Amino acid sequence: MIVAMQEKATEEQIDAVIDALVESGVNVHRTTGASQTILAAVGPTASLDPRKFEILSGVLYVHRISSPYKLAGRAWRPEGTVVEFANGVKVGNSRVAVMAGPCSIETREQIFETAARVKAAGGTFLRGGAFKPRSSPYAFQGMGIPGLKLMREAAEAHGLLTVSEVMEISQIETMMPYIDLFQVGARNMQNFNLLRELGQVRKPVLLKRGIAATIEELLLSSEYIMAGGNYNVILCERGIRTYETATRNTMDISAIPVVKKLSHLPIVGDPSHGTGRRDMVAPMARAAVAAGADAILVEVHPNADKAASDAAQTLFLDQFDQLMNELRVIASAVGREL
Amino acid sequence: MIVAMQEKATEEQIDAVIDALVESGVNVHRTTGASQTILAAVGPTASLDPRKFEILSGVLYVHRISSPYKLAGRAWRPEGTVVEFANGVKVGNSRVAVMAGPCSIETREQIFETAARVKAAGGTFLRGGAFKPRSSPYAFQGMGIPGLKLMREAAEAHGLLTVSEVMEISQIETMMPYIDLFQVGARNMQNFNLLRELGQVRKPVLLKRGIAATIEELLLSSEYIMAGGNYNVILCERGIRTYETATRNTMDISAIPVVKKLSHLPIVGDPSHGTGRRDMVAPMARAAVAAGADAILVEVHPNADKAASDAAQTLFLDQFDQLMNELRVIASAVGREL
Amino acid sequence: MIVAMQEKATEEQIDAVIDALVESGVNVHRTTGASQTILAAVGPTASLDPRKFEILSGVLYVHRISSPYKLAGRAWRPEGTVVEFANGVKVGNSRVAVMAGPCSIETREQIFETAARVKAAGGTFLRGGAFKPRSSPYAFQGMGIPGLKLMREAAEAHGLLTVSEVMEISQIETMMPYIDLFQVGARNMQNFNLLRELGQVRKPVLLKRGIAATIEELLLSSEYIMAGGNYNVILCERGIRTYETATRNTMDISAIPVVKKLSHLPIVGDPSHGTGRRDMVAPMARAAVAAGADAILVEVHPNADKAASDAAQTLFLDQFDQLMNELRVIASAVGREL
Amino acid sequence: MIVAMQEKATEEQIDAVIDALVESGVNVHRTTGASQTILAAVGPTASLDPRKFEILSGVLYVHRISSPYKLAGRAWRPEGTVVEFANGVKVGNSRVAVMAGPCSIETREQIFETAARVKAAGGTFLRGGAFKPRSSPYAFQGMGIPGLKLMREAAEAHGLLTVSEVMEISQIETMMPYIDLFQVGARNMQNFNLLRELGQVRKPVLLKRGIAATIEELLLSSEYIMAGGNYNVILCERGIRTYETATRNTMDISAIPVVKKLSHLPIVGDPSHGTGRRDMVAPMARAAVAAGADAILVEVHPNADKAASDAAQTLFLDQFDQLMNELRVIASAVGREL
Repeated sequence: MIVAMQEKATEEQIDAVIDALVESGVNVHRTTGASQTILAAVGPTASLDPRKFEILSGVLYVHRISSPYKLAGRAWRPEGTVVEFANGVKVGNSRVAVMAGPCSIETREQIFETAARVKAAGGTFLRGGAFKPRSSPYAFQGMGIPGLKLMREAAEAHGLLTVSEVMEISQIETMMPYIDLFQVGARNMQNFNLLRELGQVRKPVLLKRGIAATIEELLLSSEYIMAGGNYNVILCERGIRTYETATRNTMDISAIPVVKKLSHLPIVGDPSHGTGRRDMVAPMARAAVAAGADAILVEVHPNADKAASDAAQTLFLDQFDQLMNELRVIASAVGREL
Repeated sequence: MIVAMQEKATEEQIDAVIDALVESGVNVHRTTGASQTILAAVGPTASLDPRKFEILSGVLYVHRISSPYKLAGRAWRPEGTVVEFANGVKVGNSRVAVMAGPCSIETREQIFETAARVKAAGGTFLRGGAFKPRSSPYAFQGMGIPGLKLMREAAEAHGLLTVSEVMEISQIETMMPYIDLFQVGARNMQNFNLLRELGQVRKPVLLKRGIAATIEELLLSSEYIMAGGNYNVILCERGIRTYETATRNTMDISAIPVVKKLSHLPIVGDPSHGTGRRDMVAPMARAAVAAGADAILVEVHPNADKAASDAAQTLFLDQFDQLMNELRVIASAVGREL
Repeated sequence: MIVAMQEKATEEQIDAVIDALVESGVNVHRTTGASQTILAAVGPTASLDPRKFEILSGVLYVHRISSPYKLAGRAWRPEGTVVEFANGVKVGNSRVAVMAGPCSIETREQIFETAARVKAAGGTFLRGGAFKPRSSPYAFQGMGIPGLKLMREAAEAHGLLTVSEVMEISQIETMMPYIDLFQVGARNMQNFNLLRELGQVRKPVLLKRGIAATIEELLLSSEYIMAGGNYNVILCERGIRTYETATRNTMDISAIPVVKKLSHLPIVGDPSHGTGRRDMVAPMARAAVAAGADAILVEVHPNADKAASDAAQTLFLDQFDQLMNELRVIASAVGREL
Repeated sequence: MIVAMQEKATEEQIDAVIDALVESGVNVHRTTGASQTILAAVGPTASLDPRKFEILSGVLYVHRISSPYKLAGRAWRPEGTVVEFANGVKVGNSRVAVMAGPCSIETREQIFETAARVKAAGGTFLRGGAFKPRSSPYAFQGMGIPGLKLMREAAEAHGLLTVSEVMEISQIETMMPYIDLFQVGARNMQNFNLLRELGQVRKPVLLKRGIAATIEELLLSSEYIMAGGNYNVILCERGIRTYETATRNTMDISAIPVVKKLSHLPIVGDPSHGTGRRDMVAPMARAAVAAGADAILVEVHPNADKAASDAAQTLFLDQFDQLMNELRVIASAVGREL
């Protein structure tokens, strides 16, 4: 951690800052420049709150040098993490994975038809929501565990893996038999108790970026899971909140190359939530793969405009087929397959 | 809900939109203008997803006219809600309430000394955190229920009420004896299961705005609590995330008059989290009261720079005394007392 | 324009709003619902300020239905605008155009070498800045007109068109002989006097989105140019300001499909300014083409890390070659060539 | 400037970074830690682009320590700048100044009546716009110089100073006789040519923060003016763009204490543009003074709802009177008068 003193800082002020740092358990190196003194704190700085020193008298600026995350950093596993699933499917290698399915699991027909078409088009994961606490208290709240059972059946019938959102610690055990990949939603990205619990689980976790979370905060949240021993974390960009209202969120495509540089974890693009509009899903799915995403998570439904939730952003199955064909070409442009 | 068709929309497109609306259970009034057709949907539109119609062919724009919230709207209780507590203290009337205390309850001495000083300065609520899941997995995680017991003792000794954050449904019952006002933190503003549960509780709830939440979303979340029968909700502005990095968050002071106009619920300003810096707390507390806040929530600590959490944004008790004197004058400028 | 009255609005309030609307020169249609009255203003509403009615007593909400822009709207030219240049090159057709060159024109060697390589790789425009008013008052301020002469020579030698930024009305005439495409920078997107003047020019204009501009504002600014009779406007997405600090700006890739839907004007992606980092330029250039951009504007330099300005975001020429190969494949995935 | 190397950076990478720094004209101090090497660049670092080093191989992070501005920094004039005007009025001392008037100067009656009331209520500046390039090309564009003459007459008749916006370099000379304080609008905050020219002027400048500008950028822009020898700069907070749509902009009240800490320049709050709504102007004006603003800039009009521009955010004169009474009390709470 670097503490830059103001140009006119007195020796008393400088000494007080040094004392405060030392008291916090770190060593201090002092550089006295012509116009400015700089203090470098060395040691266990990860747990220090920079603001605590920033408000000391005579301090101009405090800056943390080391990343606040360790396990999530690229340096920890420079070759990159490849998450491997039971059936041999991998996320994070040269094959771009495709996860597709309805926002909500609704009926046996719906989920079986979707599974058949996802598989036929080249997808490897079937997605579907079972618990849907919605912003309106009156909307459809999901099928629950019976829905997950249906999804598991449909997935097995077609050789697909399953992914679904877990919302509370108490759901983890119940969901376990039906789910290959636990999804943590954007609103729970900083639900640290849930993350810690998922660190104890022996199944991979898909961690979505919060709509107001920085990439650094996303990596720090992934650290919570990995600190428990579960290193199979996959990150997901699904749109951030900006001043622009033409789209529901602004899908931050640049987060994809940034994560690839800062971290070893695979990253998935979710153009359905990223845009909130069916007609924007295909362009943004293509953009995500072109930018280097390891997988795509996309909402599809046999009868998309009648979907019980998120209808507006759900692709019809024919649109999904066409998208897959486009993605196949784009993957080849970046040295990957699909 | 208003659906504006594109200027060149065909009769077929218009009919398809009308059909889709009718199928959703609403009545449609059509206005055919020289250049544009407008459809007004009348009836139970609250549960309709505007985006579902926006993507239909020939549609230019869909706009929801009615507020998505009802119980939280000013019209529902035009005279304004006054939340009354056991000891007769009220929030939402002409007296500006002051809620103060440490970020974390740490020791008996700390919380008793704070309580004495908060009371002496004119405060009515003692605040203190017992559960502190921090963004770093290694930081101090709070005293838990023993901390709440200490806070209750200290509050009773000085005739204060208590407020503390509840983070999970399972904590509600345990916290009940020690807490007069349940605080829902910014990260839980859209934890709908928790909100629903608090709707069943017979104690008031302080609902903090999420760092990326709109005012409309804040009101919609309060609706979740009120829908369960608990109308004693107090809202709280505590800073939103913007591109500016000079402060931790940007405290949206204008949210205070906006909430007063749109809703009947009281609104509190939290300048400690709103700024994240001790030297900004007093100016922003004054601004909040000047803008019409019904209460102030502020972090204070006898030994502020040694606080176990949020030290950088915590006031010393002497600073708090001075702030109270300033607030007293400002309250009088807006026809209130403190 | 739609004016929604509050549920408890009185007849007097409703009449006052109707009077205010009529006085503004529009006709009013009134719909009286069970719980709410809605007023639809029909006529010349484009010049009305919705806020003027929003603050009237009893009004809940005012919403503008018609787009504030006309000439820029997709409806005005549904088949899309193709901008044609002197040498037959087109922007907006199935061929993705590539505009490349240094941030600043520095020397004869620099610009000639760049031109040769841009042409060889398949580019059609040579870009280069001549006027560089920088945020620091001491930085390199550009070569001015002599630089533009060099760029024109280099472009002609290799059969390329030229594009450069115009910053003031007084520069238009002087730049005219050397420039095929006038670029308006992000900071001037709402310099309405400059835009109006460019509406009188008989050369195409590349209009960059401001870093805090909505897509609607970008289209409205293009309207200023078109209102003067110059319909050859090309829009450009180059990053918006968000809370994320990992990149200099957040390049809003979704603006590309949004513009294609709302407007008939071609849209260009600028990944150099969109990211501010050399290692993010290629992924975001690929994403832009994958999302449907009509052209790419990219900074390249024979000695990129010694560039007089924007070195950090400038590609080496070999990197540019490789990018072009990738873009060629991606263009084919979306039914285009390059 | 601090360059933090990655934990696994090689000696070759470190040497290459040191060479690049030295080549840029700075000295380098190297600290080799157990896990990480840190390089501190000392010397003329103000003109270095941190990104240039950030993209070098093996670099984790680059951080500028010194403020990029010098003349605007608090250290340059710790006692604070007081701007003094011809008639002895000062901005920046203990008296809170009030600048009020219509958005646009419209008629002799309008500006004289306004002047009389502004003076009677205790204001010291008359504001009024003469050049109004609007976002819609068809709206009222202002009276120009004849308007400024009227405003000067009205101001002199009542012992007021004048403030009006200058939009182009060519207007400076013409406006000079009529204006005591040149206002630079938010859209021109980074029009560096205009700023440089105003640095040559011997009259004070009111510099408004751009809607997407950081406080640091605002200070850097003020530096442009001061670098020319004109130290009489007054800053102005007038709202920034955020995701919240309930208000036109989010007025960043916390910018006021931040500027007071970082800079010696006076700061003004503009609640009219900060909120865009008449009913929010008074609360936010009060908040600005409570937070420590040196002055308030507010739009008032004898017939506010018929104002030719910005009607929705303009106060009636009676509302202004009442606001002044409230501000007088609030000023006293922070040790000032009005």
